[in-house]
Amino acid sequence: MNLASYPPSPQTTPTRHKERVSYDRAAVHAVIDEAFLCHVGFVVDGIPVVLPQLHARIDDTLYLHGSTGARGLRAAARDGLRVCVTITLVDGLVLARSAFSHSINYRSVVVHGLAAEVTGESAKQRALACLVDAVVPGRSGGVRGPSRKELASTTVLRVPLVDVSLKVRTGPPADNDDDLGLPYWAGVLPLSGAIPGVPEPAPDLDPHITVPAHVTNWARPRC
Amino acid sequence: MNLASYPPSPQTTPTRHKERVSYDRAAVHAVIDEAFLCHVGFVVDGIPVVLPQLHARIDDTLYLHGSTGARGLRAAARDGLRVCVTITLVDGLVLARSAFSHSINYRSVVVHGLAAEVTGESAKQRALACLVDAVVPGRSGGVRGPSRKELASTTVLRVPLVDVSLKVRTGPPADNDDDLGLPYWAGVLPLSGAIPGVPEPAPDLDPHITVPAHVTNWARPRC
Repeated sequence: MNLASYPPSPQTTPTRHKERVSYDRAAVHAVIDEAFLCHVGFVVDGIPVVLPQLHARIDDTLYLHGSTGARGLRAAARDGLRVCVTITLVDGLVLARSAFSHSINYRSVVVHGLAAEVTGESAKQRALACLVDAVVPGRSGGVRGPSRKELASTTVLRVPLVDVSLKVRTGPPADNDDDLGLPYWAGVLPLSGAIPGVPEPAPDLDPHITVPAHVTNWARPRC
Repeated sequence: MNLASYPPSPQTTPTRHKERVSYDRAAVHAVIDEAFLCHVGFVVDGIPVVLPQLHARIDDTLYLHGSTGARGLRAAARDGLRVCVTITLVDGLVLARSAFSHSINYRSVVVHGLAAEVTGESAKQRALACLVDAVVPGRSGGVRGPSRKELASTTVLRVPLVDVSLKVRTGPPADNDDDLGLPYWAGVLPLSGAIPGVPEPAPDLDPHITVPAHVTNWARPRC
């Protein structure tokens, strides 16, 4: 697939705030790539379970991983696992004159799909390197790669990016006209996430090893 | 309920990393209160749905809200809605010598329960004021409160904090002994979230209205 937009589906057609929804492929990818944390929902015995996970994207595929012992991953390895993967970035707090018109500026991607296990060794290696680099770009070149035993104890899942949507709110508060004269401050407080602090070397690190550029210059790719 | 710990349940007993799990009530509350964004999972026709939502806590109850038009909320208003609410804070990136030992320092609360609609007008008003103050402490005193019509168009849900757990990873990477001599930097890159920028007044704001202290001093309560 190499479309400019993902096709809307019943799952990704919103019941509210339709003006906030986009299916633009580049815009969806930008949000997925800026974030590294997602929330993965799946159903176990009829009950919803939502867990935080790291993610990486290669083209139109989202990759997740975890221990072969984790229950959702075990189910996926058997039959494929119906998941909803949601990725949210908060850009600001929207303060209106009325409590009712308060909001959040945000970008949120929702992916519906069947997570399936990646089984080929080289495909698994590639996805795992991407997962490392999705969190710390450039890192996979500066570590020991996975051993055969480590590979075997890791489950990698792929979720196709097909049933995908992006919801975005930007801009100032939208108060009712009747409220514009009220004596309350209104506006946006911008927020930034994932701001790095000073790197903390491991206590057992050889003191001759200096902090590499991929740590010193760590930042999220911004749209 | 006023216990020091929440009771473990089958839902909140982990299959992995048992050493990271806590049921300590104060620790759970601290994470819920530091975050304002949660991811709510529920099941629609057998399919998992995960949506970002704001939340607030009063004692041992978590509150969510949304438009009466939203599909999950409509289901909750009818029969109660089985939800999994997950709240995640990322504290740092854990870089090990081996790709396999990379990790994240995080705090994550998972709440399982039945979300039920809050129907009494005063209980609804109180929860909505709390939701405003959970995002911007002190804000509910400096806005126009909800009208009867606005109240009627908002669904407020309560989720009891009973089936709750906290998972935490802290500290340096844990490489295998065999890997300690490898020539790779290892350590933690601390991350901060929700860092406020310069407040942006609404374009239609009366220029005589100054930025209030609850905006200037905005910060998350930290554990």
